[in-house]
Amino acid sequence: MTALAALLARITPPDGEAAARAQRHLDALTKPPGSLGRLEELAVRLAALRGGPPRVDHPVIFTLAADHGVAAEGVSAYPQAVTAQMVENFARGGAAINVLARQAGARVVVADFGVATPVALAGVASRRIGPGTASILRGPAMSVPDAVRAIEAGARLAEEAIAGGADLLATGEMGIGNTTAASAITACITGAAPEAVTGRGTGVDDPTWRRKVEVVRRALAVNRPDAGDGVGVLARLGGFEIAGLAGVILAGAAHRVPVALDGFVSGAAALAAAVLAPAARGAMFASHRSVEPGHELALAHLRLAPYLDLAMRLGEGTGAALFVHLARAACLVHAEMATFKAAGVSGPTGA
Amino acid sequence: MTALAALLARITPPDGEAAARAQRHLDALTKPPGSLGRLEELAVRLAALRGGPPRVDHPVIFTLAADHGVAAEGVSAYPQAVTAQMVENFARGGAAINVLARQAGARVVVADFGVATPVALAGVASRRIGPGTASILRGPAMSVPDAVRAIEAGARLAEEAIAGGADLLATGEMGIGNTTAASAITACITGAAPEAVTGRGTGVDDPTWRRKVEVVRRALAVNRPDAGDGVGVLARLGGFEIAGLAGVILAGAAHRVPVALDGFVSGAAALAAAVLAPAARGAMFASHRSVEPGHELALAHLRLAPYLDLAMRLGEGTGAALFVHLARAACLVHAEMATFKAAGVSGPTGA
Repeated sequence: MTALAALLARITPPDGEAAARAQRHLDALTKPPGSLGRLEELAVRLAALRGGPPRVDHPVIFTLAADHGVAAEGVSAYPQAVTAQMVENFARGGAAINVLARQAGARVVVADFGVATPVALAGVASRRIGPGTASILRGPAMSVPDAVRAIEAGARLAEEAIAGGADLLATGEMGIGNTTAASAITACITGAAPEAVTGRGTGVDDPTWRRKVEVVRRALAVNRPDAGDGVGVLARLGGFEIAGLAGVILAGAAHRVPVALDGFVSGAAALAAAVLAPAARGAMFASHRSVEPGHELALAHLRLAPYLDLAMRLGEGTGAALFVHLARAACLVHAEMATFKAAGVSGPTGA
Repeated sequence: MTALAALLARITPPDGEAAARAQRHLDALTKPPGSLGRLEELAVRLAALRGGPPRVDHPVIFTLAADHGVAAEGVSAYPQAVTAQMVENFARGGAAINVLARQAGARVVVADFGVATPVALAGVASRRIGPGTASILRGPAMSVPDAVRAIEAGARLAEEAIAGGADLLATGEMGIGNTTAASAITACITGAAPEAVTGRGTGVDDPTWRRKVEVVRRALAVNRPDAGDGVGVLARLGGFEIAGLAGVILAGAAHRVPVALDGFVSGAAALAAAVLAPAARGAMFASHRSVEPGHELALAHLRLAPYLDLAMRLGEGTGAALFVHLARAACLVHAEMATFKAAGVSGPTGA
């Protein structure tokens, strides 16, 4: 059995009994039943995954970076060099994800999965599959063995973090051109039209948006991906960091550690992971709803409801970092609130 | 000039130049312009209020408690005794607001504004206006002088906190029956129908909900409040804690300290505060959208968009406590992110 096959074999659905226990406990706490809304649902889902009381003490955010051959087709507002420059910014702690992760008490794992020019800096793990993908307008982004290598490299990064105590994984990415790849993956797996899934990315103008839609349409026509083949979709449509994030998600699911999905690009990785192992959905938490139109379609396909809706579209893991506060809040409510009985508070009249 | 009149005279609109400076700074940071969505809007609004870089280092949550004569009309799922019992729970640190405030690094000020049986416990400030309001089904909740006393008591609590360094105020409340008072206030000020603003509160069944709607309708008919008279609306429809929260909000606005509004009952206080001083809206931040249907109407009337939407309906200040994390995130992004120039990151192609 390959490493990937072994990982997939470990993924099982959440624990219904642990969920019911958590709900009963929440109902005994000094508040009207259900009055903390989605915070309670979140605590129950975390308990179901963990098989016991929810806890989030050591969150780790995986910000994986890679370049995309499709960037040469003029689909982004920024030059390809920005991928490497932003990885350096991550390493120096100056990017939004650094700021928001510090606030959330989360560690950021930055990894180079294939930036055009290698970034050799302390604090950047080198997991390079190649110097960027090939343009999906001309053929597959990468070979199938490379897609498997990228998934397994992401999974290993996640497993190292879990071995070190990580109890929440979060996804994030950087890669000029990667919303084009994510659009193609989302169109393929959800069946939605290219113009419905393709958004403005970093903020492209109308002509560039129309070109981007056409690139997505042609990439699907040229590559003819099979929506039922998760590895194949990643190989044909890319990118290295998206495949790596699929690995992070699958490792979380295999080890029953929750995975906070960031925005649109992470959603594309989650779609591919759910094709490979439908039960992995039990480990996925949609941190926020991005303004990218394809993100909503991806979340609907995964039957996940986002917790935050702040009109964000930055990526890097920023939405997932904000979600860490909500996940912690859900755990703390479960762990620390007094019960009606202990606090001597009366229950409902006539109950 | 009375203390209330002096407070109202101090309230002026936010600082447009500080807002523009904050937006320019955000646009120079290493992210596509606007890509942090509402986090950026939040940073800009905080800067506009403060007249300088946004900061939230010392949040204080005001959880004001009082009883309501209208509770005798059978409008709640819980007995009136729960108000005092929950205040004791707050004092011992076992309630949801204690847990979420600890997580957010916020201090909770618990004050008895008129619980039926006084709560004399360390950690509970006594600001009693009376032993609960009169039933709004029979006449005014309180006299006009008592409404002024309650507003001024809330404002003084807030001013003490501001003098101690508070840089974010948050509203919260406890009072069996207070969603009925809030429904009446919201119907009066927004002009919406009683059945449109009245919700399930702590979770009442259908017959109780119909009775609650009828109580709101009759309270408006009996008291004939004038929607243009903020103090009069609070005096006629109650309650002591709602008037106190209006005072907290007005003090925040007068001292240009942001006020995070919690849910439906806080929204009713905000509506009354905005009648007294329309410019106070500049200090109001809608932390979340409650499931109470009247809350959405109140926020629309105030032209405030909530930041969180987690199907919560607990009150106490719980939504506002979660919002503290977002407010801090907005400030940290503004303060700590690297600029394109400093990080050596390229700007948009052709820009």
